[in-house]
Amino acid sequence: MRILVTNDDGIDSPGIRALAEVAATKGQTMVFAPNSDKSACGHAMTLHDPIRILPAHWEDIPAYKVAGVPVDCINVGLISGFHEGCELVLSGFNNGPNLGFDTTYSGTVAGAMEGALHGIKSIALSMGIFSGQGDPFFETGARWLQDNWEMLLNMPIAPPGFLSINIPAIPYEEIKGFQITHIGQKFYEGYLEQRHDPWSKPYYWYRGEVIHKTYKPGTDVYAVFNGYVSITPLTPNWTDHGVLEKLETYLSSASLSSKT
Amino acid sequence: MRILVTNDDGIDSPGIRALAEVAATKGQTMVFAPNSDKSACGHAMTLHDPIRILPAHWEDIPAYKVAGVPVDCINVGLISGFHEGCELVLSGFNNGPNLGFDTTYSGTVAGAMEGALHGIKSIALSMGIFSGQGDPFFETGARWLQDNWEMLLNMPIAPPGFLSINIPAIPYEEIKGFQITHIGQKFYEGYLEQRHDPWSKPYYWYRGEVIHKTYKPGTDVYAVFNGYVSITPLTPNWTDHGVLEKLETYLSSASLSSKT
Repeated sequence: MRILVTNDDGIDSPGIRALAEVAATKGQTMVFAPNSDKSACGHAMTLHDPIRILPAHWEDIPAYKVAGVPVDCINVGLISGFHEGCELVLSGFNNGPNLGFDTTYSGTVAGAMEGALHGIKSIALSMGIFSGQGDPFFETGARWLQDNWEMLLNMPIAPPGFLSINIPAIPYEEIKGFQITHIGQKFYEGYLEQRHDPWSKPYYWYRGEVIHKTYKPGTDVYAVFNGYVSITPLTPNWTDHGVLEKLETYLSSASLSSKT
Repeated sequence: MRILVTNDDGIDSPGIRALAEVAATKGQTMVFAPNSDKSACGHAMTLHDPIRILPAHWEDIPAYKVAGVPVDCINVGLISGFHEGCELVLSGFNNGPNLGFDTTYSGTVAGAMEGALHGIKSIALSMGIFSGQGDPFFETGARWLQDNWEMLLNMPIAPPGFLSINIPAIPYEEIKGFQITHIGQKFYEGYLEQRHDPWSKPYYWYRGEVIHKTYKPGTDVYAVFNGYVSITPLTPNWTDHGVLEKLETYLSSASLSSKT
């Protein structure tokens, strides 16, 4: 099995090292990761600049640093390192959770999404670290992935669908199991902070203080907060299918049918 | 009605000017847009740098250029310009279509998504320009929006749901009407091009040649290609609900139930 490993924290993050080491025990693994931290880059791609790749000089696993974001890593990786095809894309372990609507900002999730758009089985993996807690417990992520590899790989997920997994950042022995989840809600307070530079000019900086006001059973947030690994099936098709019918009803009741 | 206008092509794009002019006839409008082209930036946010805003010195409409991406524009805009709240976010007119899975890369769509995550009615608007065609026909977008304002604003869309609208880049008279659509598929060929710099070192650059191999009735791609404005309801909840049940069945049949 040929495996492409990426992340958004950059090639020097211990998280991608931990993930690549698990992957290398399972298949022919190559790493293509950003040359610097690209956290919260979303599903961006680099259109206006050339994208270069350089060897990262890992001793054991072929690894390259890419002057770009995770989407670029996938595309450059596939074209330059996977001439015989790629069977699996792993993105992570992210140094922090990707839960609730934060999923939409995540470069880690975007890396997996890009793999899935290429028709490849793809999984994003993030460590559920929360405020007041420093250790990302990548070794918990690695052991969990190692132990659940077959179960994950056999899951009935067809690209462009893919998986986003969040693993509580706690000792492995304390993990209670896993839950299949849907995206929950996370709330922020004091989202943007206004500051002033030494010349009294204002600037803004995100604080990103997460206030978990509500989380319901069945959600990703609930699972991780209760010690479970959260496995969420995601899709790049963002159509709000539940609303389509409502809109048609609205249009016909308002005699606003389109000129067909 | 207080309206925040943004885009991803940057404050100097004629598209945002055309959009803001329509908005200004409908409500109290302020513009917060990137200070340079941020196309294909996805739902990124600027975490690692301070975000500054400067006046754009438009004569008629309050407008600011933001050192950031559309998500930043929304957040900085709301905090600095909408102390009494904001009722509508408009993002566009994008200088190009956002159809099919391209939606996932779009900064224009991300701007509307961010507004919707704040609980505000939000609409992304893009001009359906295709290869071999230069004119984005922003005036067609402006007239269509002007004529369909009430219909759009009254649509039963509850945030965090939002709308993505693609308008064919053709003379207004040739627009056949509009269609409520779901996301279709677009295919690329020769996606990344390898080149060599004057020192024979390789680099990569996206070509983004769109090959429209398949598009079905009901999709955004089909509507725009056939002269209709496409209105697609989107959601930031990317959970693949159709797969959730399959996964539970798989787990129970494989006796892989989570440790609950």
